[in-house]
Amino acid sequence: MDIRPEHHIAGELVSDQSRTFLPERAGGPGEVLPPEFPEGGEAVVDRAARAAETAVAELRAMALTRRAELLEAIADELDGAVDAFAERMPQETGLPEARARGELARTTGQLRLFGSVVRQGDFLGARIDRGDPHRQPAAKPDIRQMRVPVGPVAVFGASNFPLAFSVAGGDTASALAAGCPVVVKAHPGHPGVSAIAAAAVDRAVARTSTPPGVFSMVQGKSNAVGAALVRHPAVKAVGFTGSFLGGTALARIAAERPEPIPVFAEMGSVNPLFLLPGALKARGDSFAEGLVGSMSLGVGQFCTQPGVVFAPSGDALEALLEQVGARVRDLPAGVMLHSGILNAYQRGISELDAIDGVEQVACGPSENNRAQPRVYRVTRQRLDEKPEILQEVFGPVAIVVECESVAMYSEAARGMPGQLTAGVHGDEGELVEHRSLIEALEARVGRVIFNGFPTGVEVCHAMIHGGPYPATTDARTTSVGTLAIERFLRPVCYQDCPEELLPEALRDGNPLGLSRLVDGRWEPAA
Amino acid sequence: MDIRPEHHIAGELVSDQSRTFLPERAGGPGEVLPPEFPEGGEAVVDRAARAAETAVAELRAMALTRRAELLEAIADELDGAVDAFAERMPQETGLPEARARGELARTTGQLRLFGSVVRQGDFLGARIDRGDPHRQPAAKPDIRQMRVPVGPVAVFGASNFPLAFSVAGGDTASALAAGCPVVVKAHPGHPGVSAIAAAAVDRAVARTSTPPGVFSMVQGKSNAVGAALVRHPAVKAVGFTGSFLGGTALARIAAERPEPIPVFAEMGSVNPLFLLPGALKARGDSFAEGLVGSMSLGVGQFCTQPGVVFAPSGDALEALLEQVGARVRDLPAGVMLHSGILNAYQRGISELDAIDGVEQVACGPSENNRAQPRVYRVTRQRLDEKPEILQEVFGPVAIVVECESVAMYSEAARGMPGQLTAGVHGDEGELVEHRSLIEALEARVGRVIFNGFPTGVEVCHAMIHGGPYPATTDARTTSVGTLAIERFLRPVCYQDCPEELLPEALRDGNPLGLSRLVDGRWEPAA
Repeated sequence: MDIRPEHHIAGELVSDQSRTFLPERAGGPGEVLPPEFPEGGEAVVDRAARAAETAVAELRAMALTRRAELLEAIADELDGAVDAFAERMPQETGLPEARARGELARTTGQLRLFGSVVRQGDFLGARIDRGDPHRQPAAKPDIRQMRVPVGPVAVFGASNFPLAFSVAGGDTASALAAGCPVVVKAHPGHPGVSAIAAAAVDRAVARTSTPPGVFSMVQGKSNAVGAALVRHPAVKAVGFTGSFLGGTALARIAAERPEPIPVFAEMGSVNPLFLLPGALKARGDSFAEGLVGSMSLGVGQFCTQPGVVFAPSGDALEALLEQVGARVRDLPAGVMLHSGILNAYQRGISELDAIDGVEQVACGPSENNRAQPRVYRVTRQRLDEKPEILQEVFGPVAIVVECESVAMYSEAARGMPGQLTAGVHGDEGELVEHRSLIEALEARVGRVIFNGFPTGVEVCHAMIHGGPYPATTDARTTSVGTLAIERFLRPVCYQDCPEELLPEALRDGNPLGLSRLVDGRWEPAA
Repeated sequence: MDIRPEHHIAGELVSDQSRTFLPERAGGPGEVLPPEFPEGGEAVVDRAARAAETAVAELRAMALTRRAELLEAIADELDGAVDAFAERMPQETGLPEARARGELARTTGQLRLFGSVVRQGDFLGARIDRGDPHRQPAAKPDIRQMRVPVGPVAVFGASNFPLAFSVAGGDTASALAAGCPVVVKAHPGHPGVSAIAAAAVDRAVARTSTPPGVFSMVQGKSNAVGAALVRHPAVKAVGFTGSFLGGTALARIAAERPEPIPVFAEMGSVNPLFLLPGALKARGDSFAEGLVGSMSLGVGQFCTQPGVVFAPSGDALEALLEQVGARVRDLPAGVMLHSGILNAYQRGISELDAIDGVEQVACGPSENNRAQPRVYRVTRQRLDEKPEILQEVFGPVAIVVECESVAMYSEAARGMPGQLTAGVHGDEGELVEHRSLIEALEARVGRVIFNGFPTGVEVCHAMIHGGPYPATTDARTTSVGTLAIERFLRPVCYQDCPEELLPEALRDGNPLGLSRLVDGRWEPAA
């Protein structure tokens, strides 16, 4: 498949060869991958954002079934491009072909799931309080509430999920599902994959006769492109997955606008695991296998990579570390997404190596321009003295924290910064005994995992991929799962509105067949 | 009833007479109202916030029925203090005794409404996606989601609603309903009313054996007290009703914390009304009556006060202005909440008077230290040249914008800053004809009102008292109505959690009888 090196602006390919960039071939620093892509600037961002603005009313007015058809058409077009993704994604990101195919299935499944949410319509949150002209001392007005789209959404492609968190990934799917036009800033680590995806979206938009302004994608390597997008007055919300520095920079820009807008930035975390003694004794082997698999999956480049394990010191832990070490030493070094990430990983490892009391348990075989998996150990006392040991090093590394007693787990949990996930491993009696640990974790994370590992985020209705700062900039939501649609909606109410002017969702007789809260009682869908 | 001039910290009266302030008697600048109240500082804020933090887990663990009983007990204790409020509130605020009684009924009704929401439990947003160990290529985990309290909430009392938006007002009711301890910063304009309310809350907390840390109230006149509260690491969210300067200052402080927190600031707006020609002709009289009543109610000191009316020029408008003028000239001048607000009103009026083309239609009779109601007129052309004419002047003033044609209404609506409300007056045919105006308004406001006036915010399930910036700092929510509870909740999910450890809301068999989203389908409450 042709890779078109243009911006995609409201269905048009926009070329600007005055400034360009060449992507790097993953795993081969210095090697480049044609074609050259245009470097976006304020002009093209303005064009995209204005096109999005003009599409707001029309997208809002489209029937929900048509909105669902758009999401499904995008999924179909993406599926049709599977071979192109399978070819290009490994070149740009080092991720294997099987991952490209798997991630595409996840991405299109996600779009179809949002399609089903849109068809069903309950996300509109319809509420009706009927009026009473005879109420004393004052007549009671008729008030009807529903959620409406916030307006154009800026979506930032993530480096580590070139499909599922990028051009047509979760943020785009949930924004379009909410009825919001999207302007994507493609990640410069995979502009070709982004171009293939954008072309698929363009085809779906055209095929479903959706106003073309609902989707644009701007290419670019400099931070200025993204900053211009977040500053643009037409943009009303931002979705981002990436680093703490990137997410907080965008949040700052958004807060300083004349009209501040919300930024939903998912910035990763160390996803601690807490190992209880019974589980360590009974299932040390399977824990070692699960841990090493989860920490090294995708060369450790997941927001949910488990970077820290709290475990009780003693013989059982020594046995566990031996097994972990043996497994890690067998793991080949991996190609990271791009050389900047590899450099940051190696810098992080050097910093860990330089800290007194942080001891390397095992390291995979060395290979040029590859990241070796590593496991470290440190005592709880030493960690107390140097809490920065637990700062996230993005990549295949985990630190085991030896604890004299598991009684300190709750305190450690309460003291940790916000996390996307935390896991507890224990047999059922142990877990019940450590209820206070679970309560402490619940207060610090978005997802509490029992006897499992955090990688592999199920895309479903109940998932929360979020959590308190600094895991995200807004703990009241999620970036995976159908609740994500709520980020891009705001409630509006209509007082004493004539039936003819009411949105269908709020009309008497419930023509859309929604679940609605009527006079304080849920009336289920027909 | 005794008014105790202390801080209320977790059920204890805390005195600190090292710095104090004396409230002013409303309408009598220079006159003071004993007793002297203590000026809070970092120490007392810290004590209150820490007490709140220690109460988080216990409040979270309390059965929902007990949480509802607390809200209902607060309502009962407040009702029991009605005579004390009726005596003190007019002295501190100039608001009449009848308003004190009416506002108290609204406040306690609001608490009981949140009590019913808590009992009912659907606000927990329970979602269950059942697992499937046999799914290919990977087992499907069991994921269960619900909302949990965010933690201690800082609530700022509003000057203009000494009961309904203050110590035990909407923010406090919704935060407690969500399961969040509250630390109130009392408004210095009515410290006595605040003290009476805080004592009532203390009695309710004690009577229901609720952990006392769930409620504290700090007195103080300086901005430093509120800033210290918003900066305190234990505080996880902020509720505020007041000025744009106050709300945005708190939002800035909150964003600059090491852990930023959300600020829900409702900052008022000019609440434009759009008058269509048919309604003007058919019902000019009743419109004039409604407008003058709404703009001058409570001496114009409502966030929803209608400050701007767009109307078609011509004879009908001239007749309307005559009627409006006659009514305004009959209105007595009113006592404002405090001398600062009166001074700001008079400054705002002087600024309007100084603008070429802004013409006074009518003014009420003058009286010392009172605010005279006023109506102005300006042409649409002049407004285009000087859009700052529509900046809110807090008080009993409205500006009528003469438009050559109502065709320009949609453009005016699209160009306006975010508003709490907008109203359209027209007969049904006219309204349908101006559907694009209604769509434009929907995009800029929280509540669209048909043939009505914005003052009088119904406390119900479907109300939205919110809207795009600068009406609020967060358009995705409301500060009136039961949806307000969502501000103080965040979702968490549990993966493969043993039944015994699951929160009751998520257990098999649905012991709380909630509506839950199970495998993507709403299962209504039993």
